[in-house]
This record gives sequence, structure tokens and C-alpha cells, in this order.
Amino acid sequence: MNDILDVMHAQRACRSYDPTVPVPDTDVERILTAATRAPSAENTQPWVFVVVRSPESREAIADLWSAGWQHAAADLKQALPSSLYDDLETGIGKRGFADAPVVIVVGADLERVMESRAPSSIYPAVQNMLLAAGSLGWGSCLTTGLTMEAAEHLKAVVGLPPTVLPMATVYVGAPARPLKPGRRRPLAEVTHAERFGSAWPS
Amino acid sequence: MNDILDVMHAQRACRSYDPTVPVPDTDVERILTAATRAPSAENTQPWVFVVVRSPESREAIADLWSAGWQHAAADLKQALPSSLYDDLETGIGKRGFADAPVVIVVGADLERVMESRAPSSIYPAVQNMLLAAGSLGWGSCLTTGLTMEAAEHLKAVVGLPPTVLPMATVYVGAPARPLKPGRRRPLAEVTHAERFGSAWPS
Repeated sequence: MNDILDVMHAQRACRSYDPTVPVPDTDVERILTAATRAPSAENTQPWVFVVVRSPESREAIADLWSAGWQHAAADLKQALPSSLYDDLETGIGKRGFADAPVVIVVGADLERVMESRAPSSIYPAVQNMLLAAGSLGWGSCLTTGLTMEAAEHLKAVVGLPPTVLPMATVYVGAPARPLKPGRRRPLAEVTHAERFGSAWPS
Repeated sequence: MNDILDVMHAQRACRSYDPTVPVPDTDVERILTAATRAPSAENTQPWVFVVVRSPESREAIADLWSAGWQHAAADLKQALPSSLYDDLETGIGKRGFADAPVVIVVGADLERVMESRAPSSIYPAVQNMLLAAGSLGWGSCLTTGLTMEAAEHLKAVVGLPPTVLPMATVYVGAPARPLKPGRRRPLAEVTHAERFGSAWPS
């Protein structure tokens, strides 16, 4: 699938992977090349990618999720719709994120970009990664749970220096089961003409 | 142009617009629909779009740029390569951002998402906007100068409530002149295998 609007429309968070299907390095390269085409503040291109395939590192990352989940699960179960909670729980369990053959830790090099400008310079590149993965037929998922809640542990697993801020953990692999269609709010609900509160199109 | 990797490869920041070429609402709708297909933290979809076309509001936004530029220009001239400084200066001047027929202020609804999760929920949607604009043949530019440095003024121009955090100002229109090819660091320079510092592919 190549048409850009089709790829965007089909994009879903994949939280359940088939560990028996390898992702070739050539596809990882296409995904990362796509990332580097994204815009960044003053074209600083502050992205850092660590491609993790080793079972040991993937297990260490999975352990960070398990520890965090035990801590947060009760609150999330209260706060989220049950279908979403179940889907998130899938990511932690068997055939979850831990079974994705490729994990890409995405960081921002703070020697290149101010921390305040890092998000607008990194997440567009991450979105390019997800779209490129989708166009190549792979499932993928952007997660920030570890970079928000377990950043120091994650940095240790992939050896990031103090000047590189981890900002996303991206999973890539074959979906273990078909992805359900996405649910989206109608455009009219989130779009305004000229001023907040005025219906668009006016 | 529809092929997703082609669109990504062609993406450039457009800072100079032809004010005589209107952007139809149908294209704005396609661009915003693309935005709403992006992922967001726990599928909260916290995006808020204000589509600004009126000359008065566009001029008010341009005035915020002028004021900020006068404040920052000397420092930027020191800090940036001259070609990039010149390109940024273009955005402030005649045929710059002020001549883009459509300005879209993108905000995060903090009643839907925690502020810490807003960037990873908003900038992927902004990237979809830029890619969709490119696939439709429009120039576009993601800017965060106003949302970083003049947020309260920008909120006033488009009437954002206190609970909506402005995160990007996106320009859309016909480029006033052909865009130069992008400059990117080689992938090998930013990609690591298993641990930071190990060459990829290993």
C-alpha cells in the first residue's frame, strides 16, 4: 500500500505481534530513512535511533513495561474505556510488545536542539516511521510509557549518554491478529473557523 | 503526488507564499482529516484546529512574528548557518508566512490529555497535515515560534480557552518560488545497533 491517504487511514496502534515473522534490515532502513525526511526545529535533525533486536535487550525493555504496568494498571482500569484498557493490557502480555522483533528507541540529542524544541522535532519523524512501516505492511506502535515513566532505566538498556533524551519506544513487526478499524471523533467537533467555537467551514 | 515515500522525500518547509492562489476548503478538509488519523495517547484525540483565513487575523499573527523576530534576530544570526537564517528571515518578510492564505493554529485540549502527553499526541497529527498538504501540491510549514514565545497573544487572536494549549502554527499555500532540495544527515550517523555508539546495521 503506497497511497499516502490510504496509509494514514489504515494506521492503527499494533500492540500484539507474531514473533515468528522477522523484519528485514532493509525495511528498518526504509522506515528510518523516512524518519529523517521529517522537519525539525531549524533543521537540527536531532533524532537518535537505537535499533534493538537482541532477545536480552527486548526482554529488559519488556520487564520495564511489566513493572510499570503493575504500578499503573488499577488507575488505568478506572480511567479508560474497557476496550482500550484491554488493548493496552495486550501490549504487556503474551504476544504483546515483547514479541515484536524490532524495537526502536528514539531519542533527541540535546546537544543539537533545546529540550523545549525536542518534541516538535522528534514526533513528526516518529510519525513518518509509523507511516512507512504501514506502507511496507508492518504493524507498529508509538509508545511513550517507558520514556515518560522509566527513562533512566531505558537509557541504561540502550546505553544512551546523558545528553540524549529518550522520547519514544517504537515497536515494529507482523500483527499477531488483524487490527480493528480506528475510532475517530468527527472533524467538525475539533475544527473551528477563525476563532474557537465558530463552526467550520464557516 | 501520492506515493508516501515520495511525499516524505519531497517535504520541505515552505516559508514564502504566493498570496494570489487560494486554497480551497475541500483541501483544508483533506489536510485536517489526515491529521485526525494520527495516533494519540490512549486515543484521546486531543487536537483542536482553528482555520484562519481572515486578513485581520492573519495580519495580527504576522505582527506577532515581526515583534518576536526583532527580539531574536541578532541571536539567531549568530547561531545559525547563513542560508538557514536567510530562509527563516524570508518567513517574516514580504511574501513570507503573512502571505499564506491559510493559517491553522493547532492546539491540545488539556481536558482530554495530560500536558506531558500532549506533544506525542499532537505533532504526529501535524506531520500528517504537512504530508497531506504536500500530496495535494501545497507548500506548508510547521512553526512553533509563536506557540513557544507568544502563546498568550496567539490564544487571544484565535480565542482559545485556557484549557487549550497552542502547540503549532501551520501555514498552507502555493510556494512563491520552487523549494530547494532538503539537506539531511546520513542515516548511519544517527542510527545505532542495540546500544548507542554501535554501528548499524551490525
